Amino acid sequence: MINVGIVGGTGYTGIELLRLLAMHPEARVQAITSRSEAGVPVGTMFPSLRGLGLLSELQFSDPAGAGLSRCDVVFFATPHGVAMGEARELVGAGVKIIDLAADFRLKDTAEFERWYKMPHACPDLLAESVYGLPEMYRDAIRKARIVGNPGCYPTAILLGFLPLIEAGVVDVEHLIADAKSGVSGAGRKAELGLLFSEASDNFKAYNVGGHRHHPEVVHGLNGRSKSPVTVVFTPHLVPMVRGILATLYARLTDRSVDLQALYEKRYAGEPFVDVMPAGSHPETRSVRASNVCRIAVHRPQNGDLAVVLAVEDNLVKGAAGQAIQNMNLMFGLPETTGLTAPPVVP
Amino acid sequence: MINVGIVGGTGYTGIELLRLLAMHPEARVQAITSRSEAGVPVGTMFPSLRGLGLLSELQFSDPAGAGLSRCDVVFFATPHGVAMGEARELVGAGVKIIDLAADFRLKDTAEFERWYKMPHACPDLLAESVYGLPEMYRDAIRKARIVGNPGCYPTAILLGFLPLIEAGVVDVEHLIADAKSGVSGAGRKAELGLLFSEASDNFKAYNVGGHRHHPEVVHGLNGRSKSPVTVVFTPHLVPMVRGILATLYARLTDRSVDLQALYEKRYAGEPFVDVMPAGSHPETRSVRASNVCRIAVHRPQNGDLAVVLAVEDNLVKGAAGQAIQNMNLMFGLPETTGLTAPPVVP
Amino acid sequence: MINVGIVGGTGYTGIELLRLLAMHPEARVQAITSRSEAGVPVGTMFPSLRGLGLLSELQFSDPAGAGLSRCDVVFFATPHGVAMGEARELVGAGVKIIDLAADFRLKDTAEFERWYKMPHACPDLLAESVYGLPEMYRDAIRKARIVGNPGCYPTAILLGFLPLIEAGVVDVEHLIADAKSGVSGAGRKAELGLLFSEASDNFKAYNVGGHRHHPEVVHGLNGRSKSPVTVVFTPHLVPMVRGILATLYARLTDRSVDLQALYEKRYAGEPFVDVMPAGSHPETRSVRASNVCRIAVHRPQNGDLAVVLAVEDNLVKGAAGQAIQNMNLMFGLPETTGLTAPPVVP
Amino acid sequence: MINVGIVGGTGYTGIELLRLLAMHPEARVQAITSRSEAGVPVGTMFPSLRGLGLLSELQFSDPAGAGLSRCDVVFFATPHGVAMGEARELVGAGVKIIDLAADFRLKDTAEFERWYKMPHACPDLLAESVYGLPEMYRDAIRKARIVGNPGCYPTAILLGFLPLIEAGVVDVEHLIADAKSGVSGAGRKAELGLLFSEASDNFKAYNVGGHRHHPEVVHGLNGRSKSPVTVVFTPHLVPMVRGILATLYARLTDRSVDLQALYEKRYAGEPFVDVMPAGSHPETRSVRASNVCRIAVHRPQNGDLAVVLAVEDNLVKGAAGQAIQNMNLMFGLPETTGLTAPPVVP
Repeated sequence: MINVGIVGGTGYTGIELLRLLAMHPEARVQAITSRSEAGVPVGTMFPSLRGLGLLSELQFSDPAGAGLSRCDVVFFATPHGVAMGEARELVGAGVKIIDLAADFRLKDTAEFERWYKMPHACPDLLAESVYGLPEMYRDAIRKARIVGNPGCYPTAILLGFLPLIEAGVVDVEHLIADAKSGVSGAGRKAELGLLFSEASDNFKAYNVGGHRHHPEVVHGLNGRSKSPVTVVFTPHLVPMVRGILATLYARLTDRSVDLQALYEKRYAGEPFVDVMPAGSHPETRSVRASNVCRIAVHRPQNGDLAVVLAVEDNLVKGAAGQAIQNMNLMFGLPETTGLTAPPVVP
Repeated sequence: MINVGIVGGTGYTGIELLRLLAMHPEARVQAITSRSEAGVPVGTMFPSLRGLGLLSELQFSDPAGAGLSRCDVVFFATPHGVAMGEARELVGAGVKIIDLAADFRLKDTAEFERWYKMPHACPDLLAESVYGLPEMYRDAIRKARIVGNPGCYPTAILLGFLPLIEAGVVDVEHLIADAKSGVSGAGRKAELGLLFSEASDNFKAYNVGGHRHHPEVVHGLNGRSKSPVTVVFTPHLVPMVRGILATLYARLTDRSVDLQALYEKRYAGEPFVDVMPAGSHPETRSVRASNVCRIAVHRPQNGDLAVVLAVEDNLVKGAAGQAIQNMNLMFGLPETTGLTAPPVVP
Repeated sequence: MINVGIVGGTGYTGIELLRLLAMHPEARVQAITSRSEAGVPVGTMFPSLRGLGLLSELQFSDPAGAGLSRCDVVFFATPHGVAMGEARELVGAGVKIIDLAADFRLKDTAEFERWYKMPHACPDLLAESVYGLPEMYRDAIRKARIVGNPGCYPTAILLGFLPLIEAGVVDVEHLIADAKSGVSGAGRKAELGLLFSEASDNFKAYNVGGHRHHPEVVHGLNGRSKSPVTVVFTPHLVPMVRGILATLYARLTDRSVDLQALYEKRYAGEPFVDVMPAGSHPETRSVRASNVCRIAVHRPQNGDLAVVLAVEDNLVKGAAGQAIQNMNLMFGLPETTGLTAPPVVP
Repeated sequence: MINVGIVGGTGYTGIELLRLLAMHPEARVQAITSRSEAGVPVGTMFPSLRGLGLLSELQFSDPAGAGLSRCDVVFFATPHGVAMGEARELVGAGVKIIDLAADFRLKDTAEFERWYKMPHACPDLLAESVYGLPEMYRDAIRKARIVGNPGCYPTAILLGFLPLIEAGVVDVEHLIADAKSGVSGAGRKAELGLLFSEASDNFKAYNVGGHRHHPEVVHGLNGRSKSPVTVVFTPHLVPMVRGILATLYARLTDRSVDLQALYEKRYAGEPFVDVMPAGSHPETRSVRASNVCRIAVHRPQNGDLAVVLAVEDNLVKGAAGQAIQNMNLMFGLPETTGLTAPPVVP
């Protein structure tokens, strides 16, 4: 039984970790911290988690007295900058760390500082940490002490582009990622733009000039590309709670490639990547509440452009589910442990 | 391992049965029928169910050749009138039946015929069948060969009113059930009024003059009332997919009653009824995708009116989940088997 | 041409006033105040209002320098407590006032203080002010210097109950108003509970123990009732932007009354109350963006309970539209001036 | 006063024509046809249109007896293929025609037949008809007898791309239009995929292999391009009722161009195209229920890719509003007549 700690459990990734861990047969949440909610039981804070026994009764605690160093693994479901401040002490105590924020995603500290407006607190730990996309770095994750869990957009975009990049069949200098996310991706924050009356019955692009997930996508793709990639990334806000669809465009340099076969081969055996039949249009709801990323690849009018459609639940494969997938790898469990509940449709 | 057959698996209760049974450790779907989709694998019809092994590969079959008589239990997720036509043969073959339509809900065949516009095909089987609300008829369900699974509205309304009726503390001739349902309650039917562009950003009452669930509510309450009840039932359509909230009004004849204690006592030990703390306002999403019904009881301005709020997921506790709860009872399994996944929030 | 000032123009009632006044042939917005947005043009703050000429260019101004005393009428689209603080000076300058908040709704200052937690600043002006429901107080509104514009819920509930109360055909001690509102009714405030990810795909009751609109409903009905009314009022939050449906229940003391005729007669000639044909189920979208309140009256199973359905757009007939209707009356214009654009469906 | 006939008034473009024409000071709907609803008054069919005087009382009539040849203009809000069958007779009677379907959009009859699976009934009239995008063909529209009103997607895509194409500053062989539409764009048809429970809380691409609006976009752009264009067009379905956002990608061949100035100059004086300030992200709701198309142009990371964002209301500028704009031109009225109501936000 893995003893789990969660730092910052009152956001959407925090409650999603609780939901998923409640179904995990080999993990047990021992501590969950929140300064503002200290003393409040989980089931009081989140009525959907009432009636789950010990988990419902577990109280949020102040980080100081939470006993995180006695856990086997600690998930950080916190704002950027928290995990790196606590990582050294926990790692020193033998605790594994999975950070759902950005502290351990970008290996280049200068780039981290440019996008997140703070110096990195522990470049040495950053250097040893592993980017937690199992479909790229499974073996390294197994041995990692610190995992930087990928952002929601990068997960879908990387899984969608990787087969093309690795096969070297596209012009990597002109990649386009037109991505659309449900509103929960923005977090549980009281901001005007996220109000129901603002975001409902509405659609828009945002941050076209630059989004924090952009460098993460570039780094990820560069990790498998022969030459440096250039990606234009356009995020959009969809009036739905969960889900990301990334519509990816890449110009083929080798028009003879069998795209369907390429994708099926790349992801053969991957438990959480589903390459759909040729001609498919994956829907976000087809992965709602599950850890699956479904992908379809098209080549409209048999032209020179590959169009890839990749869907995921931003809170699961794009956050909490992938974090648990990483935990399973780090503790030698079957990768799908606790992650097999089917998507919820309708 | 229970061998399960599903008749009519292409509606919302059908796909929900599949989703829930995929998580059930003691049941296995052996046959699923659909005339129109015969030969199509489940995972092709419902991409959300891809990747689930045998269940995904299972093909819809024509009812004739489905081998339903070799199942241990058959769920009917069909239009009204189908189950009663096939019940005799299946029961004769030793198969237990759980009907999610209305064929075995109303004991009075004249009333059935008045509301459903068809004669009842097997009044004798109707007579022995049990109304599948475990919180009322648990013991009878355990021994039943045929269970009439309750309607979605009646489940919430009965669970909400029962403590008051059973305690005899309200005027049973003036009960009001103002109930609100998500759109999935209307089924997976191509009707104009159910279109996104009609039902979204909109709210309305419907069938104020009479709804088929009305006699079912009356019968259910009469089963526990000393004198015949009169209920005004007003259904409304909410622009959401899943969920029912029943707001119930009853005039107290005994103003000394401790409502909170009454409800807590009535449902003590019930695994799927959650009496919330005094002053609570249960939200439909707090039970989304789960088999729980959450209830709160109020007495505004300390007056003579009890206001009960009851929420459920209409597709789970209001349909497929309750059906599996009944199956568990009929086969001697722990009642919660396969029904423990927490609600999905947000 | 009426010179209009708007205090607090950055909320939903403020932007709705701007939208409606842009279509008003006899009114011109001269000043709009907002401390936080001073200097920002209306069209920059609200891109939907770009391209409307002078209105788009009009800048929000600090209240101090806005020149409100040179306006003919000032609308207060502010939090409770603002209008009463500025009323004396404006009225002294000959400016008419229409307050969309609660300062001039409750004649009883003690009650005002109990619900709004502040002393009333000008009881004398409160005494002369008129409650701005034209269907009740049209003549008084015509002569008023100060109008307290009704709350969104009270408008629908009063219009729905009035015919029954005035006719004296129901038990006024046991009225029930089960009301449902879109999220814009809660205002443009950054609160967690109003986030898209919290309010979408969800339904709940709130403030069952007491809502600020409750005393306003009671006062309104008492204004036309022979004996004091008791109302239980249950507000609910609907996942839609605009719209209120009030489902009203009243027990008939005179079962011979022709309800349809009663309603048609009461509202004959009313430009903004539409009594629908018997058996109708009004939808909130049928009044979206318009000043109409549609009402249908039912008597289920021909019993002793009248069920009234009343829909309105909470931002129009429930706020800004009714305010302009009042302005039209106060300035001797035809009551429908500027309010004739049809509802937006779908 | 223009006497207007509408053929096929029961779909979303039909009801939108009625809503907009109700506000038009120079037009009067004389006849509206629907075989299935013959004899039903408009206000009965669409309760949102009750209380509008003659318009509400106007009855749907069978096309045969509708007296369309006595109208000044007839709008066809019908399925593809209807207008071309009736055009010759009406034009012969001196009636102008505005077809909101596709019969007069594609000049190449072979292409029309390939996409719409029917022969063209009147190639000679097609030859004289004008494509009804005023921002391209204003002068021709003024003199036209027959106007083919553009599709909803093509309107946004053409308005978004035109400045780049006309200026000759992009690689026209590699254009990408990633477009997203609200569900009303699919029409008022009882189809499973358009149900609330299917389309809500969901997002997907569709018809990636080919959409009927694709040839229309290509033709439109070719009309202003020095060399033939190639466009990859990816439509997506957004869970909202109204609105289209087209996110357009074009590779700059001239990197010195000032994109903001180019767009502002191209659309200077256009009453219904709003070029937003540099850095803007137009939202679909900012044009809800209005005839405006708002455009913003970006150049991420100062690279070689122009990203254009164009929003419109698919039922207004993408259908009924543009049709009335065309009518205004054809009858010598100011182009904005009847089209000045501001967008509805929130």
